[in-house]
Parts: sequence; C-alpha cells; structure tokens
Amino acid sequence: MANSKFEYVRHFEQADVLLPNTWIVIRLDGRAFTKMCAKYKFTKPNDRRALDLMNTAAKAVVSDLPEITIAYGVSDEYSFVFHKTCNLFDRRASKLVSTVVSTFTANYVYSWCAHFPDTPLSFPLPTFDGRAVCYPSVENLRDYLSWRQVDCRSTPSLARRFTLTQQGHINNLYNTTFWALVQMGGLENKDAEKALAGTVASDKNEILFSRFQINYNNEPEMFRKGSVVFRDYELVDPESHQVAEEMDNLAEPARPSKKQTEKERRRRSRARLVVEHLDIIKDDFWDRRPWILSNKPGLAPKEP
Amino acid sequence: MANSKFEYVRHFEQADVLLPNTWIVIRLDGRAFTKMCAKYKFTKPNDRRALDLMNTAAKAVVSDLPEITIAYGVSDEYSFVFHKTCNLFDRRASKLVSTVVSTFTANYVYSWCAHFPDTPLSFPLPTFDGRAVCYPSVENLRDYLSWRQVDCRSTPSLARRFTLTQQGHINNLYNTTFWALVQMGGLENKDAEKALAGTVASDKNEILFSRFQINYNNEPEMFRKGSVVFRDYELVDPESHQVAEEMDNLAEPARPSKKQTEKERRRRSRARLVVEHLDIIKDDFWDRRPWILSNKPGLAPKEP
Amino acid sequence: MANSKFEYVRHFEQADVLLPNTWIVIRLDGRAFTKMCAKYKFTKPNDRRALDLMNTAAKAVVSDLPEITIAYGVSDEYSFVFHKTCNLFDRRASKLVSTVVSTFTANYVYSWCAHFPDTPLSFPLPTFDGRAVCYPSVENLRDYLSWRQVDCRSTPSLARRFTLTQQGHINNLYNTTFWALVQMGGLENKDAEKALAGTVASDKNEILFSRFQINYNNEPEMFRKGSVVFRDYELVDPESHQVAEEMDNLAEPARPSKKQTEKERRRRSRARLVVEHLDIIKDDFWDRRPWILSNKPGLAPKEP
Amino acid sequence: MANSKFEYVRHFEQADVLLPNTWIVIRLDGRAFTKMCAKYKFTKPNDRRALDLMNTAAKAVVSDLPEITIAYGVSDEYSFVFHKTCNLFDRRASKLVSTVVSTFTANYVYSWCAHFPDTPLSFPLPTFDGRAVCYPSVENLRDYLSWRQVDCRSTPSLARRFTLTQQGHINNLYNTTFWALVQMGGLENKDAEKALAGTVASDKNEILFSRFQINYNNEPEMFRKGSVVFRDYELVDPESHQVAEEMDNLAEPARPSKKQTEKERRRRSRARLVVEHLDIIKDDFWDRRPWILSNKPGLAPKEP
Repeated sequence: MANSKFEYVRHFEQADVLLPNTWIVIRLDGRAFTKMCAKYKFTKPNDRRALDLMNTAAKAVVSDLPEITIAYGVSDEYSFVFHKTCNLFDRRASKLVSTVVSTFTANYVYSWCAHFPDTPLSFPLPTFDGRAVCYPSVENLRDYLSWRQVDCRSTPSLARRFTLTQQGHINNLYNTTFWALVQMGGLENKDAEKALAGTVASDKNEILFSRFQINYNNEPEMFRKGSVVFRDYELVDPESHQVAEEMDNLAEPARPSKKQTEKERRRRSRARLVVEHLDIIKDDFWDRRPWILSNKPGLAPKEP
Repeated sequence: MANSKFEYVRHFEQADVLLPNTWIVIRLDGRAFTKMCAKYKFTKPNDRRALDLMNTAAKAVVSDLPEITIAYGVSDEYSFVFHKTCNLFDRRASKLVSTVVSTFTANYVYSWCAHFPDTPLSFPLPTFDGRAVCYPSVENLRDYLSWRQVDCRSTPSLARRFTLTQQGHINNLYNTTFWALVQMGGLENKDAEKALAGTVASDKNEILFSRFQINYNNEPEMFRKGSVVFRDYELVDPESHQVAEEMDNLAEPARPSKKQTEKERRRRSRARLVVEHLDIIKDDFWDRRPWILSNKPGLAPKEP
Repeated sequence: MANSKFEYVRHFEQADVLLPNTWIVIRLDGRAFTKMCAKYKFTKPNDRRALDLMNTAAKAVVSDLPEITIAYGVSDEYSFVFHKTCNLFDRRASKLVSTVVSTFTANYVYSWCAHFPDTPLSFPLPTFDGRAVCYPSVENLRDYLSWRQVDCRSTPSLARRFTLTQQGHINNLYNTTFWALVQMGGLENKDAEKALAGTVASDKNEILFSRFQINYNNEPEMFRKGSVVFRDYELVDPESHQVAEEMDNLAEPARPSKKQTEKERRRRSRARLVVEHLDIIKDDFWDRRPWILSNKPGLAPKEP
Repeated sequence: MANSKFEYVRHFEQADVLLPNTWIVIRLDGRAFTKMCAKYKFTKPNDRRALDLMNTAAKAVVSDLPEITIAYGVSDEYSFVFHKTCNLFDRRASKLVSTVVSTFTANYVYSWCAHFPDTPLSFPLPTFDGRAVCYPSVENLRDYLSWRQVDCRSTPSLARRFTLTQQGHINNLYNTTFWALVQMGGLENKDAEKALAGTVASDKNEILFSRFQINYNNEPEMFRKGSVVFRDYELVDPESHQVAEEMDNLAEPARPSKKQTEKERRRRSRARLVVEHLDIIKDDFWDRRPWILSNKPGLAPKEP
C-alpha cells in the first residue's frame, strides 16, 4: 500500500526471454585468470589441480540443474548446454546465466581446498562471468562445441593465460615446447620465443623428444581434448536411432504435466554423471549417446 | 585456421548493451532460500548471522568493483548500483550481472564458516540469481531503492521465507508478533494466525508488550531498515551542492583518459567501505553524501 | 568536426539483430481497419476489392525484396517470410520491419485508385504496423503459416472488423449466415445474433441454403483460404526431394560471393510471381514446390 | 479450438518494449534515394519540391500521432520525437517504428502528385526505413537534434545523394559551389572537384560570388537549416519556466485517466502544426516554446 508510490519502478525491468525451440549455451570464463595463475602458481602450461577443480564445479552445476544435457570445459572456461525444449526460468537469459555462474562459483570456492590443500584462497576470490547464446539446430550446437574443442587443441588449457606473446601461432605444440625450453631448458621467455621462431611442427616435436624426452602424443587426454560432463548410460548402436533429425523436427516444446516433468527431472538427477576426455567433434560420440540430444534417459550401464 | 569451419557460430551471440547515461541496478536474490533457512536453522524472523554474511559478501562486491556507488540489501536480496557514466564491460548486461553474482557468491561461500562456525555448508550450496535494470534519472533510482526499503519495513528480513500465509498484510509488526506467539507463546502456526486475524497495529503492539515484554521500536535497525554499503567520507552541508540536478543534466558519459580512469578507480578502491542501517528514502541521506551520486571521492572523514 | 560534440548520441542506438539460421516472419496488420471498413463501405463479410488491393501490395513487396520466399495474407494482415539464410540489412529487425511495411504501404496507397476507382482516399490514410518473429525450424514456420490459415477459415477476411459480438464461435460459416440474415434477410444485427444463438453447423447451412439459396461450399476460395504469394516454377514430384530436412540440417548461412548473391537475386526477381488461394497447411503444397523452402529457383513452368 | 495445435507459435514473438521515462526518437531514411534522385531528376543540390513533400508527409505523421512533440527533417531523413511519458503501443519498438514509417510513406506517395504534378510515380515506389532510439535526458535529446542539424548545415539536403566524392569536407558551401561549377559553369564533375581541391571557405565564397553572382548567405533557410515541425502556440518569456529541469525530474510516467488522456490528445490534435526552418541548437528555440518539452498545450497564438 505505502509501497504503491514507488512500485512503478518495476516496469523498468525489460524482458530477456531466449527464443523458444533453440539450444541454449551458457558459457562462463574465469575473470582475470592470468593474475590467478600467477598468484596461485598454477603449473604451466597445464595445471591438473586447477582443471580438476573446474570439472568438480561443472559436475555440481549439471547435477543441480538436470535441464543441462552436456557440458564442455577447457582451460578456465566451461560451456553448459540446456536442451532446446527446456523451459527453466521461462528461458529468461539473466536468470539462466546468473544461476549457472553462481552455482559454478559456489562449488569452485567450496571445493578449492580439496584440490589445493596447501594453497589457501585469498582476496580477491576467483570469479567467473557468463553469457547465453542460442543455437537453432543440432548442427549449430555441435559446431559450437567443436569450435571450443578445436580451440582447446590448438591452445592448451591455461596456456593463453601464461603465454607472453599473443600474436599468431599459439597452439598446444608450441606451448608445450615453449615451456619445456623455459622450465626444463632454463631459457628466458624471450630466448625460448626466439628459438621457436620459424620452426614447423616436426621441428618442435624433434626439440621436445631429443632435448626433453617428451613424446607429445603421450600428453594427457585432459590437456589435449578438454573435459566433457554428461550422464552415463549404456552406449547404443549408432544405427539404432536418428536423434539429431528427430530433435531438429521437434517443433513445439513438449509441455508435459508438472508431475511428468518432476519425474523426468528426478530420473535425470539420479543418473550417474561422468567427466571424460573424448573427441566430441566426430559423429561417434553423439551417435552412441543419443540421450544427450534427446534428453530422454538411456539404459543404466551394465555393472562391470 | 582449422578453426574457421566452426567459427561462424560466434555470430549467434546477441548484443545486450544497456542504454548509456542510465543508472544500472543489478539485483540478486537467494535461490530457494526457504529451503536454505530450514536446512541451516536460521533464526526467525531475522537471523543476524545470515544478514551479516550477506553484508560481508556485498562489501566484497563493492570493493572489487569500484564502479559500484552504493548497494542496498534486505533479507536474501541485494541491489548494486553502477553509476550512470559507468562503462564497465561496455555495459554488457550478461557480463555485469554474472560478475556481480559470481563475486557475491564466491564471498558468501568463502565467508560462511566465519559467520556460521558450527554449521558447515553442504550440497546443494547456497546460490543467487540476478538481473539488470536501467533507471534514467536520479529520481527513478532513488524510487527504486525506496521501493526496496519500504518492502523491508513491511516484510522483515527473511520473513517472507518463513511465513505460511502469503496473502495480504504481511509486515514487520505482523511477523514479529506471529513468531513471538509461536516461539515464545508456544502456539501452533495456525493458532497464531487465528489469534492475529482482524487485529490492528495497536493490538499487535499490545500483545508484544503485555505478553512478551517486547517494545517493537527497540528491534535492531538492521532488521527494520536493511543494510546500505557505501564509501565513507566526511558528511557535507546539504545546501552546499546540487548533485542530483547535476547528474540529471549530465548528458554525455565522460570519457576520461585511461590514466585518469585508473587513478579514480584506485582512489575509490582506497576509500573506507561501511555498512550502515539508515533511512535511504528521505533526502537527508543523499544530501549529506553527494559522492554517492557524483561518483567523485569526498573528503576523508576526520579522525575521531 | 564541429559535429564531434554531439556525435556521442550515436551510441544510444541499440542492436536488434535477429538470431541467424532462423526463418524471419514479418507480419503487418492494418491500423484501425474497423474504421477504414466503415469509412470506405467495404462489403461484408468479405470485400473482394480490398483483398485484391492487399494482394497487389503484397506482390510488390515480394517483387522488391527477392529475399522473401513466400507471403500469406488474410483480411487486413499479411505475413512475409524471409529465408533462414537471408542476411538482408544484417538481419536488423527494425530495418526489415520498416522496409516491408513501407513498401507495402506505398503500394497500397499507390494502387488504391485502381481497385477503388470511385472511392478516393481521404485523411487519415490507411496505414499498417508490423513486427518480426523468428522461427528456428521448417516445422515451426509451417505451423505459423497454418495458424494464420486456420484463423482465416474460422474468421472470414475482414469479418473480425464487422462483427459486433467478439466472444466465441465467430467463424466463416457463422459470419456468412449472420450477414445473409442482415443484408438479405433485413434483420437487425441483434436479431440476427439471436436467430443464430444455439445453432450448429447444419442449422446454419440450412438457413443459408433454404432462405438465401447460398451453398456455402461455393463461396470463393480467396475468402475461405486467404492468399499465397510465391514464385511460380514447374511443380515437382513430392518424392523427388527432402528439402525440409535439408533446410533444418543447414547450419551455416551460406556466404556466397557478392556476385553470386546478386546473380541469384536477379534470377529470383525475374521469376513470375503468382497469387493463389491454396491450402498451405497440408504437405502437398510444400512437397510440390521445394523452391519455397530451398530458395533455389526451380524450372520455368512449361508454356500452356 | 482447432487452432490450438498451432497456436504455440505465438510464444516465439519477443518483447521489444523501450525503456520507460526516456525520449523516443524514430528516425526514418529514404531507401535508395540516390537512384530516386536520378530517376525523378531532383534539382541539385537541393530540390524544393522534394523537401516540401517530405515536410507534408512529416506534418501528417505529427498530426496523426499527437504523442509526437517535435519532428526534424533534412534531406531524405526525418526524426520524430515521442515525449518521454508517452505510452503509445505500450512503447513497443516495432509498433512505433512501423506506424511512423507507414504513415509517412502513405502520405509521401499520396501527396506526390501535388508536389510533382508533371512527374508521375513509377515502380519501384519510394520507400523509407526506420529505427527507434531512446534518450534518457533533455540534454541527450537536444544533442541528438543538434547532431542532425549540424549534419544538415555541413551537408545540404540531398547533397549526399548527388556528390560523387564521399571522403572529407562535404559541406553545404562545398556542394553549392560544386554544383554551381557543374550546372552553371559547364564543368564535368571531375573538373569541378579539381577546381575546389585545396580551396578554403573564402575561396569558395569568392567563386560563387564572382563567377555566379551567388551570395551564399542568401540561400533559402530550408536548405541551410532543415525543417522543424511542431505545434504553434504563443511564444513565452524564456525566464518564465524551467521546463527542461522539470522534465528531467519527472520520474514516473504520469498515468492520467483515459478520459484525461483522450482530452489532452484531442487538444494537441487541434493545435495548429507549423513547419519552420529555425536554429534548434541554440537555447532560444526551446526556451520560448516550453510546450515542446512539457507536452502541455500552450496559449493559442494571438490573431495577427
């Protein structure tokens, strides 16, 4: 009542509903992680603890928000995919972005000490920003995820944060060789840069192997492919379904009963979440896991 | 290079730049705090530890983002005001919202154990969602903040989360009396509701005083007024300036040199941040603290 | 130079780019056409001259903007579909909407006297407003057009503008019978309404036939189905293509060379435009005209 | 009923409400007017008939939409200002833009023959596109209009459309001299360009005067200042009001009764609209016509 005089201010809030029947990707990125890396002395060019912590936080997000069907992370960024039929928060962009970012941040900070037992957090704390992007078709969505994974391959996790030179050919092989020269070879950053100027791939492989006994192909999958979070069901025969076509043909967001929604949500919540380091560019990953695109639970994996 | 095939997906990201020359308010709200309150046994109708934790997190946000000129919190919500000239993140809504929410969440989780030493956090962790709203004039901005403070007065912090009845006259006095009847008087929720049906303000004051020796006017300011975070400078004579008019007249966002921006940012960073429980509806609060609207540092407060 | 002081105001314009890879529908509606109908004494419930004028204007729009692949009109509204790969005006909503509405209006006013030779226009002139909506999949687009055509069937063109009662079962049959009773039967509006209260379809058909010798199924197709504008090529065997699937699979907007774009644009410009009154809900219309969804010219129709 | 299967498509329409309490400017521009100018042989560098037609159409827009408080036009563009309290079409951008553009176009086409009696229109017809921009303060709004008028002064109406060179110092004086050399001096475009290379203002004035007896300061005001459309009331003493401050202080859009709104709308409709060629950059124009910013009718001008 007394409130009515001021209540008009509500009308200044503007709608930000995301287009229905599109795949929603929320991508978050670490803020000022270059400083973070230096401050907490992350291992270069890849810090396994830091990546594990990212994965722990991402798993918690997918667990808390069963509407997420897959997540993909590399370096200090993570992308979360909401199914195209998702109606969470009436698809309001700011609610979706802020909830994902908040849940990720809460878990990152909470789980820090488990991954960095000897390095307590200090101010300013690690934080993340995020944004929402809509993709109309399965192909668009897969191309988005491929884009992130190609980026990972050519830029090893966290490497962007360590590398002094930003121009040009910064890729995994370059960085691995660069840091080998600096950390194992004792070179200054500038000299390592000079040493690599003009080299091609075979030169770098040669340097790695002959001088440091590193076989690049044996580097951990997590560093080379990034991390995928999804629900784990029994793999299927790629020929047994046409889920990509079905999803593209899906015109109207299903409006199941509240009871049905709740039931499916619970079913997804119970599924086992896994973090793996797989190629998500090729068809095989998707063809054998139709539930990722269909959002319908698969069969529980057989006990080993 | 190999990336180019997928890179077209970048063009699906849509601009969300907030209108220049307007005050940006980012408001965040606790997610599912009704459950949180029950799970962690927050005191009803106001939990001082929970409110202190909110204030700690809010102070950290204002400290990390000197572009914020004032923040106001009540219950499980907090509003952060960016000055109308602010150009942080090019005024992109999702970056602003997610950064504020992430910084708040990080500090909330990090500082939990300091405020709840005997109650460890457990999954799912506390999280927040947020949104951005633009206000064109000083009056609009002040009306927004007044709206939140009026809401506080009529709904004591956290009360919304505890109160069973949602219709109608839920205000501070009602809730205080309701919980007195339940907690001190031993009534069931339903019976307390019945006992209050049809009562007017003087009846409730009478019940509080005669049965529980509570003088409502002595309740803590934080419960009755919420919390304001701002930089602390020496108070000025209300007649000495016309900052509201000046701000409304300000047409073009100043584009100071990078050096100048950085200098001012640092100066604001150094100012002492305070959390107080004041009336921000009346002119006095604003008239004596012109720096809140001008975003120009005031004089350092005299040593006591 | 002298301009620079004011030029900052450019930055207040906000982006309104429509999501890539989606079908863009621009729908326009006559403004205040109830008054227009009365002022110019349009025949009830359908005015052939008014509908022909709408079709003339729509044809001019499709002719001027070859990026439009199909248009559908009923009563005082028209929908124009831009192909999902269209990049006209960088997909800026306000440019697309205003250009379509302006071109339609210009032609409506210009061609008025050809369709209403005895009724000169007077102020205020007929005008239209418009909006843009994006549809991610072929199915969504077809459902949109079906929605408009179903609306036409159940509400004969212009009928909404004439009918006094707005609640409930206003459909073609109802209106045709209503106006027969009023215009041919000499009833007052109120009495015609009463006479139809509680009648079912067979009753109305009976009234039309026995009292006015009208066989409802012989009413013109334009009144019953609305009007479709498209480019005319040789019909194909429905089994010969899978254009809907192909279009849904299309991920990246083709970025043909400027020369190629210009060439295709010219080819489409040269195609013969037709206005027909067909069922666009059933598959047949689309299966035999794959060029509407593919935006690739078909074969020129054989000379009769 | 039968409709329900398709009706879900309604939810794909996205909100585009413009921020409350801001001045809305709708600017429209002629589409492909370079071709138009050539096709209809508009006089260079200014065609009085074409400008008069623009003004006629603009006056009709302001007359049909009394929510518009002022309009300013130059060359083939026109800007229409809706008062900050305006709630027309619930401030939906696409409705506002399309209605203004449609009304302008209808009147442009309709009134063509009155201004070009010997030059009938032919296809493609002249059309316009438009956009909406919000300005938070009176100063922002005035700066916007000043920006357009400065542009006019430095680029005479329609000159942009005729001038071959687009780089650099294209202003009124340049163009007037250029076309004098071409049209009266018989030079080729290229030679006129060369003749002017490196000249300063006094050189051009000298050329105009000594070779063509043109005194630049005697050129018509319409060419040099553009055209302003507004309602005509008795001028007031600049000291008698503080309307700019009042408007900036106005926080809440007044929500007058429907009856009141209708009454004011009618009152504005009855006011005499004028088209004048005045300086709208200086304060004087605004100070003597407070009704333009207040949107409150002034006193009817005294009979002469």
